[in-house]
Amino acid sequence: MLSAGKMRGLMRIADEEGRFRMMAIDQRGSLKRMLTKVLNREVEHKDLSLVKRTIVKVLSSYSSATLIDPVYGYPWAIKYFPKEVGLLITSEETGADKGGYKDRERKTRLIEGWDISKTRRLGADAVKLLVYYRGDGTEDIVSHQENLVREVGAECAKYDIPFVLELVSYPFKDDEEADNITFARRKPNIVFDYVEEFSKEEYRVDILKVEFPANLKYCKEFANGAFDGKKREPAYDLSEVKDFCKNVTKLSRVPWVILSAGVDIDEFVENVRLATENGCSGFLGGRAIWQDSVKYYPDIEKVEQHLLTKGVDNFERLYDASKNATPYFEAGSFNGYPEMELDKFGDNWYKDY
Amino acid sequence: MLSAGKMRGLMRIADEEGRFRMMAIDQRGSLKRMLTKVLNREVEHKDLSLVKRTIVKVLSSYSSATLIDPVYGYPWAIKYFPKEVGLLITSEETGADKGGYKDRERKTRLIEGWDISKTRRLGADAVKLLVYYRGDGTEDIVSHQENLVREVGAECAKYDIPFVLELVSYPFKDDEEADNITFARRKPNIVFDYVEEFSKEEYRVDILKVEFPANLKYCKEFANGAFDGKKREPAYDLSEVKDFCKNVTKLSRVPWVILSAGVDIDEFVENVRLATENGCSGFLGGRAIWQDSVKYYPDIEKVEQHLLTKGVDNFERLYDASKNATPYFEAGSFNGYPEMELDKFGDNWYKDY
Repeated sequence: MLSAGKMRGLMRIADEEGRFRMMAIDQRGSLKRMLTKVLNREVEHKDLSLVKRTIVKVLSSYSSATLIDPVYGYPWAIKYFPKEVGLLITSEETGADKGGYKDRERKTRLIEGWDISKTRRLGADAVKLLVYYRGDGTEDIVSHQENLVREVGAECAKYDIPFVLELVSYPFKDDEEADNITFARRKPNIVFDYVEEFSKEEYRVDILKVEFPANLKYCKEFANGAFDGKKREPAYDLSEVKDFCKNVTKLSRVPWVILSAGVDIDEFVENVRLATENGCSGFLGGRAIWQDSVKYYPDIEKVEQHLLTKGVDNFERLYDASKNATPYFEAGSFNGYPEMELDKFGDNWYKDY
Repeated sequence: MLSAGKMRGLMRIADEEGRFRMMAIDQRGSLKRMLTKVLNREVEHKDLSLVKRTIVKVLSSYSSATLIDPVYGYPWAIKYFPKEVGLLITSEETGADKGGYKDRERKTRLIEGWDISKTRRLGADAVKLLVYYRGDGTEDIVSHQENLVREVGAECAKYDIPFVLELVSYPFKDDEEADNITFARRKPNIVFDYVEEFSKEEYRVDILKVEFPANLKYCKEFANGAFDGKKREPAYDLSEVKDFCKNVTKLSRVPWVILSAGVDIDEFVENVRLATENGCSGFLGGRAIWQDSVKYYPDIEKVEQHLLTKGVDNFERLYDASKNATPYFEAGSFNGYPEMELDKFGDNWYKDY
């Protein structure tokens, strides 16, 4: 049972096959850090806007939908958004407030001055909210994050727009680091935990955008330094990793997609292939697709030329890697397109809607 | 200056060239009358829905946008709406209330139980309102119609969605008939009058959907019965008719498109060609495109086969006829795509929107 706005929104952000081949260009903090490295001056609002507009201009038409923020992105890029490409708008403020254990935990805030009604009003096809989440964190942090998701879920229902919830974990315990085996070992369960939590009906999520449920750099078959030349002790093997993906599929009530979280394109392609061969519905990738092109900024001409070659090539690799993705209408609690039903369907639908 | 929702909406309903090649399947009263002729029983809700769904299924992908009603149409057709095709939703109740001179004048009502917020919520790209209008009618009828347009215009502004206003005149004076030379002679001025009226900023209209500003059956070059075999006394010649089109372009503050109003495809193709060669931005055609196919109902198989051949052919003729249409961003008060500006553009756009 889908309401009319949610159904149309899902159709708009998927491609004709019902698969999600989406691009994210809503980065703010991470893009600013990338630009800081290549510029010998302070990064300004217009630098972020110009990079975002350029990426939309060259690559958006390769995506089934493009995710962008309303602060630096959309107003500058709107005239380059192809009509057929779905539009997702970001809700959360970049970064996070600190709190909890040794002040290492993260609390998400919404963008001040922005809301879901504006997202609907400007003609977007879906809302995206990124929430940092560790289900095993401090209670008040956990419930803060859960309440925020519940709140945004209710707003999306009110404006009848699909809700794409992005979940990102982070190390905060004393024995954890972003790149250590302890955190790598915990990753699958962290992902299972949040997929299970936010699959609950009360959050009213329509698509889960999640991390790959393992760190492939710690997977036996890639631990010899396949992606970055650095050898690591394996935490699991490929067959286990496939089972992790299958388990996400099993736990998720809704279609799920893979985020790129700053990994490079080779690793992201593997993530996408493994996930989509095991029940995932596609990708919503950002930096993995376009980050190498940003190095040429502020030479926009070179940025564009790099996007037109390497960026397009990255997209083509991702299309190929996701060819077995599960169409959204066959994922989660869906049961095939013919079984997808409009909520309140009938002769009085227009009155009851 | 365009707000974000209006800009995106215009881009969504135009094609890549900025031209409008739109199909209307929001007919209710006229479709019911057509079905009454071909069925030997009472026409039911599901008959209208089935015909509408079939037409959307076969022909929608040929249009830059499709207009449909929320009563019989959209809930049945939603799953066949291609993602790339723009979606316009009807606001007015079919038909009209009577009033004014000898009870021959028409007052429009909105669909009860429907409103612009629902249209926005379901993910539509534009709102359409049909208003019967004679500027030389009885004062209270005229102001009723104008008030309704003003009201819908304000709602569209509130929800930031493009407002497509359809204007249809009708004979009501003692010397007028739908098919007589007096009404044919008055037609150009009736159209000029309403285009001028509803070009006023206060109505907040974004696109005018208007009648061809002449009756081609009374144009010297076609008055020998070119379209229906019936000879008529000419009211004007082709050069005058072209000037009528140019005058509509001159009077209209916004892009305008041609409606088909039940004329057959040959006449509509001529209307579209003459209008778009003289400043019009395209068409929003209904019956002229698909009416011949409806005759096969209730044999859906035959309806589909006829749409797939004759319907597609009609579309192709209309594309060709409108190849010189003025892109919306060069029409009315627009001054080319590069000059099109986002309202409230700047670093604080997201707060001010």
